[in-house]
Amino acid sequence: MAEPAGLDRQVAHLLAGAPGPHTGAAAAVAERARQVLRPAGALARLDELAEWLAAWQGTGRPAVRRPAALVFAADHGVAATGVSAYPAEVTAAMVKALREGVATACVLARQVGATLEVVDVGVGDPTGDLTREPALDPARFRACVQAGRDAVAALDADLLVLGEMGIGNTTAAAAVTAILLGRSAEESTGRGTGDAGLARKRAAVSAARRRVGAASPMEALRQAGGAELAALAGAALEARLRRLPLVLDGFVVTAAVTPLELLSPGALANAVAGHRSAEPGHQALLARLGLRPLLDLDMRLGEASGALAAVPLLRLAAAAVTEVATFADWGLQR
Amino acid sequence: MAEPAGLDRQVAHLLAGAPGPHTGAAAAVAERARQVLRPAGALARLDELAEWLAAWQGTGRPAVRRPAALVFAADHGVAATGVSAYPAEVTAAMVKALREGVATACVLARQVGATLEVVDVGVGDPTGDLTREPALDPARFRACVQAGRDAVAALDADLLVLGEMGIGNTTAAAAVTAILLGRSAEESTGRGTGDAGLARKRAAVSAARRRVGAASPMEALRQAGGAELAALAGAALEARLRRLPLVLDGFVVTAAVTPLELLSPGALANAVAGHRSAEPGHQALLARLGLRPLLDLDMRLGEASGALAAVPLLRLAAAAVTEVATFADWGLQR
Repeated sequence: MAEPAGLDRQVAHLLAGAPGPHTGAAAAVAERARQVLRPAGALARLDELAEWLAAWQGTGRPAVRRPAALVFAADHGVAATGVSAYPAEVTAAMVKALREGVATACVLARQVGATLEVVDVGVGDPTGDLTREPALDPARFRACVQAGRDAVAALDADLLVLGEMGIGNTTAAAAVTAILLGRSAEESTGRGTGDAGLARKRAAVSAARRRVGAASPMEALRQAGGAELAALAGAALEARLRRLPLVLDGFVVTAAVTPLELLSPGALANAVAGHRSAEPGHQALLARLGLRPLLDLDMRLGEASGALAAVPLLRLAAAAVTEVATFADWGLQR
Repeated sequence: MAEPAGLDRQVAHLLAGAPGPHTGAAAAVAERARQVLRPAGALARLDELAEWLAAWQGTGRPAVRRPAALVFAADHGVAATGVSAYPAEVTAAMVKALREGVATACVLARQVGATLEVVDVGVGDPTGDLTREPALDPARFRACVQAGRDAVAALDADLLVLGEMGIGNTTAAAAVTAILLGRSAEESTGRGTGDAGLARKRAAVSAARRRVGAASPMEALRQAGGAELAALAGAALEARLRRLPLVLDGFVVTAAVTPLELLSPGALANAVAGHRSAEPGHQALLARLGLRPLLDLDMRLGEASGALAAVPLLRLAAAAVTEVATFADWGLQR
């Protein structure tokens, strides 16, 4: 237990020293938004997104030119208990499809001009069954967090999109949510992508919650999460340290990064929620994080699909501030 | 009164003879959506959008390659009563900005690969003051509807986006909404883009409603709408007759096309709502039309901006069905 508690402290320490937003760039964009040829505030959230992008890109001319999606993939011991409609082997098959460019997220990434990279942190090497034992031992947990950090550190991107693939991982996300927010299995658990048996999933989440009890945020992730969830937390941590703007996908990604915000309020200030998934646990996390998703289309696929679908809005938001003429250019008074 | 009542009948007659959706194409897309490499239903509304696009494009390979935005512009007599924060001259200035490519909608159109054309149906030639007299006489009303039809007939597009520009036109839209739906001025009226005085707007809407009383749908549009609203109704009519899929912008566009649905239920089956505007009257219209907007970002600009922002979602929806591999391609069982 010393190691994971140490990781909580270490992550909190890193976040405490993380640089804040570029307030000057954000202010410059806010000022230009007031001068462009439309009533002040008429683009509402799009203007806010442009400011947010400026704040984390550190420029008064925000743009989305090099968006990069990272899809973390792993297998889950809990999948053997029948929580998913799909066998665990589907994780490996989908990773292959993602790598060969034929999966849904690849098509969406191409459409929005994003790169997509799959980071395997445990496909074919399932975690412990979270209903009975810690999903990850301290060393593997630490290695997965580091793998997430390393994947982000290696990118050349102006926007990060996070996604995941792992049969059984909505059960892990629900267990993490139940523990972190102190909510019941019923409130935290939905049908996921594979509608096997909601009752079975809820029982698994209940068992995990009883087993783990109260836990520090990163420890909850180690106990009840999974390898790709740990890597996602690491990726979000690294993005925050690098002031890289970040689009969260749905339930699993949001559950995985929530420990950062719980350890250090504001840790996810560089993140927007790409979409609201159909999973009930996602609503609870979004409320806790104060995030209002950009899209609300009942999607429940994962793979970064909801976050990728939101990327065009960020691009539009930036262009609507930087490329529109000002009232002064146009000889009009505000 | 004979003429407009005649136009109601004529529009209803045209709509009664309008061809329906291509059900075979829609079924082919629905079938492929069940076969592609993701859990059935996981893309939810995106899959529905792909089917809808197929139904109106008449192909099992829907795509958005030639989206075209039409922005109808006109001036309003009611603007002289101070319902907008902006003087009526701003309509002409914004039309110039839209034509020269420097307005917000132009930037959004370029970003999403859409053409944008402004159709002037009365800039500098204000309608009657709807609080005191019919906005349009029967001949001009008919000519505006025809102008809308002609503009659509001249397009080479696979997706139509409708927008508007006209200082004072949210007052006209609120008056039309109040009359068509039998709602109060308070329920129908918001601040629009120019927050001059909500009380003044509500008084204008009340006056129009009292003056017009109950009216047939197109007659309500003639009495309390405006030249660009009439043209928008004509454009939507022509799109329906041509089975051209259509993205509605916000409050003004939705108010203008609602008479079609009231005359002939299903008349707007080829339409989706691009976004939910911040205007209260828009909510009432969307509910009446059974439309769930694609975006909900508090935008209240007009110019087709909300509809243009939704175009990437349609493109993604189509690609996510047509370009993703199937389970069979991938040697997996569903």
